[in-house]
Amino acid sequence: MKEVVRLGVIGCGARGAALVNGVLISLHNEGVQILSVCDHYADRTAEMADKIEKECGTRPVCTDDYRQILAMDIDAVIISCAWEYHVEIALAAMEAGKYVGMEVGGNFAMEDCWKLVETSEKTGVPCMMLENCCYGKRELMVLNMVKKGVFGDVVACDGGYHHDLREEIAYGEENRHYRLRNYLNRNCENYPTHELGPICKVLNINRGNRMLTLNSVASCSKGMHEYILQKKGAEDKLANARFAQGDVVKTTIRCAGGELITLTLDTTLPRAYSRGFTVRGTKAAYWEDMDAIFLDGKDNGAEFEPKKLWDNAKDYEPAYQHPLWKDYQPTGGHDGMDYLVLQGFLEAVRKGTQTPIDVYDTAAWMCISTLSEQSIQMGGMPQAIPDFTRGRWMERRDLTELDYSLDTVKE
Amino acid sequence: MKEVVRLGVIGCGARGAALVNGVLISLHNEGVQILSVCDHYADRTAEMADKIEKECGTRPVCTDDYRQILAMDIDAVIISCAWEYHVEIALAAMEAGKYVGMEVGGNFAMEDCWKLVETSEKTGVPCMMLENCCYGKRELMVLNMVKKGVFGDVVACDGGYHHDLREEIAYGEENRHYRLRNYLNRNCENYPTHELGPICKVLNINRGNRMLTLNSVASCSKGMHEYILQKKGAEDKLANARFAQGDVVKTTIRCAGGELITLTLDTTLPRAYSRGFTVRGTKAAYWEDMDAIFLDGKDNGAEFEPKKLWDNAKDYEPAYQHPLWKDYQPTGGHDGMDYLVLQGFLEAVRKGTQTPIDVYDTAAWMCISTLSEQSIQMGGMPQAIPDFTRGRWMERRDLTELDYSLDTVKE
Repeated sequence: MKEVVRLGVIGCGARGAALVNGVLISLHNEGVQILSVCDHYADRTAEMADKIEKECGTRPVCTDDYRQILAMDIDAVIISCAWEYHVEIALAAMEAGKYVGMEVGGNFAMEDCWKLVETSEKTGVPCMMLENCCYGKRELMVLNMVKKGVFGDVVACDGGYHHDLREEIAYGEENRHYRLRNYLNRNCENYPTHELGPICKVLNINRGNRMLTLNSVASCSKGMHEYILQKKGAEDKLANARFAQGDVVKTTIRCAGGELITLTLDTTLPRAYSRGFTVRGTKAAYWEDMDAIFLDGKDNGAEFEPKKLWDNAKDYEPAYQHPLWKDYQPTGGHDGMDYLVLQGFLEAVRKGTQTPIDVYDTAAWMCISTLSEQSIQMGGMPQAIPDFTRGRWMERRDLTELDYSLDTVKE
Repeated sequence: MKEVVRLGVIGCGARGAALVNGVLISLHNEGVQILSVCDHYADRTAEMADKIEKECGTRPVCTDDYRQILAMDIDAVIISCAWEYHVEIALAAMEAGKYVGMEVGGNFAMEDCWKLVETSEKTGVPCMMLENCCYGKRELMVLNMVKKGVFGDVVACDGGYHHDLREEIAYGEENRHYRLRNYLNRNCENYPTHELGPICKVLNINRGNRMLTLNSVASCSKGMHEYILQKKGAEDKLANARFAQGDVVKTTIRCAGGELITLTLDTTLPRAYSRGFTVRGTKAAYWEDMDAIFLDGKDNGAEFEPKKLWDNAKDYEPAYQHPLWKDYQPTGGHDGMDYLVLQGFLEAVRKGTQTPIDVYDTAAWMCISTLSEQSIQMGGMPQAIPDFTRGRWMERRDLTELDYSLDTVKE
């Protein structure tokens, strides 16, 4: 049990800063030290180092070379740089014996997911996708209800990344943001994990179940062009850019247990934010968009008055709130999810145990991006989803909590 | 212009009775006569004839042979029998020169859709799917807003038949209902048109646009088995029945204009009713499940407070209610949609004009069932959707109203 977890943060853009400022700095009295920060841009590392020095009393090493961080005497790295560099850095970190906390994002090549798995297996170093939405209040409450049998057999789950990102993308050059180049050049489910992670926990993926195949289709791309003309004008250098990314991408995933997962990427049309988390079982249903639960035998009278159910999920909190959320007052970014996911990671580092989201989860969730890209380009052709556990999913036990320890994992 | 429209009703089960009792009887003083009723079961025709005789003063001919009805001097038939017989009867009716008002349902063979088109073209007799949801209050309001440009370019539409039909299916033998045999034997998007019809009107399908390909995938089938065990017990003859129909079927359809349509069949798990009508454009969005409209430039402040938008669609009624719904007090079944769809059909019969939903619409909407069945069995493989207009969709004009006349159609 480590008293102090020594961290390096690789990637000091908006996301890295949110994790550091929103959560990590406040933990420095509880045994977390940020010894080094790394970014391609020196202004970003300097700003983050200033902040850490001011709040924690010691200035971290600043570098633009992540290998310098990996050579230091630290326990773990947080990788929060552009999507394209996540895997390269994670592999090097595991080889260097550092726990990997890797921010969310999809993959760019199937081989990369295999490399993550093989490197984690070879080195024995965990690699955790920092999927904060696995720690969402509603996601965890519904997971808890599913584990307690309230939903009966879960048959279908939906989720989406419904987030109007037009401004972030359109000003990607000004803001040095990686989404712009991705939206210009790729057409895929580029950000599957916010919705897929919690769904995979509900469906026991890699622990008694697995994802078998997917199909993806995309709409045309109109949102970005219209936004840029409207906000930046016809003289802007992006005014005539062709965005490869379709405005809406639908991905359907079939699982070994017969369950159907539907994912939606929806980031370049006007709307309000949602992760569209939906769980459908033989005894109950939950819909995030209405924040509503339907219990068979209780709510059937409202069959034609669905509005009566809207906003009723909070009524289930006293009985079914997840242990992680009981007596917990949200702190830090994203309604407290950032705090919880980092605590889950840091606890594993401290104890030297497996992480609550492991490398098989990370690989399975990331690979949807490349497979969806392939499917879209082939007119929606089904694509096989690899079994990164190599058959162990059949025997791995059903871990019901997100805060388990390594010794509960059946290897 | 006919003063009196003389009808035959073929199919006197629950749906036929709803149309007759809910709408047609009340129109008998406005020039509608039901001269004959037909059903496989004599008790059904007798009951309907009793009702008509009591309310309208004359007893219709009762028969179990639809050919007897087609030989009579009538103007039109309403086909409301089991799905499997719709096409056979529609073809015979067109050959006999009778307008066809055909209840909703999918097809069982692609060839049948072509026969509908070819027979309507050859005989000059219209064939209208009586898709009442095309006349829904919200569907028509949103259509009206789309035509007025409020949504900008429409990029993606969703819809579903979200209706817990477990009781109807489980007691299908007792109730002589055709769904039971379909759910036991088929696995497909068996009922696409309630959501697809209104979406096709929004997207100008067959009038400047067309559907190109679809992919369908299905979940396992668990809802019916569990329901039967619970409600009818382990001794029931269906207790060990294997239902072929997956509980949830997702179908994605790509259109010539780049739009993406997503359909969901969802009829054997607990939930409240919805058609999940969703329209996403570059300037606005509508979601039936929240009855919410999001206008770009107006509602962006509610990005992270979507509940503020819930239930706001009614605020748009004064400005955008569809002409068919202005000053209209819902009457008859299904919130007035049955009344409006039958009036649309009867008006065309009376005037001798094309029907507001024509044979190309009917064929294109029905064919989704067979194509989805094929796609599901092939692991979600894309299927080509035929162009039943044989290229005329490129030139047919954009009919913005559902109550247009034949002479406005460019042939």
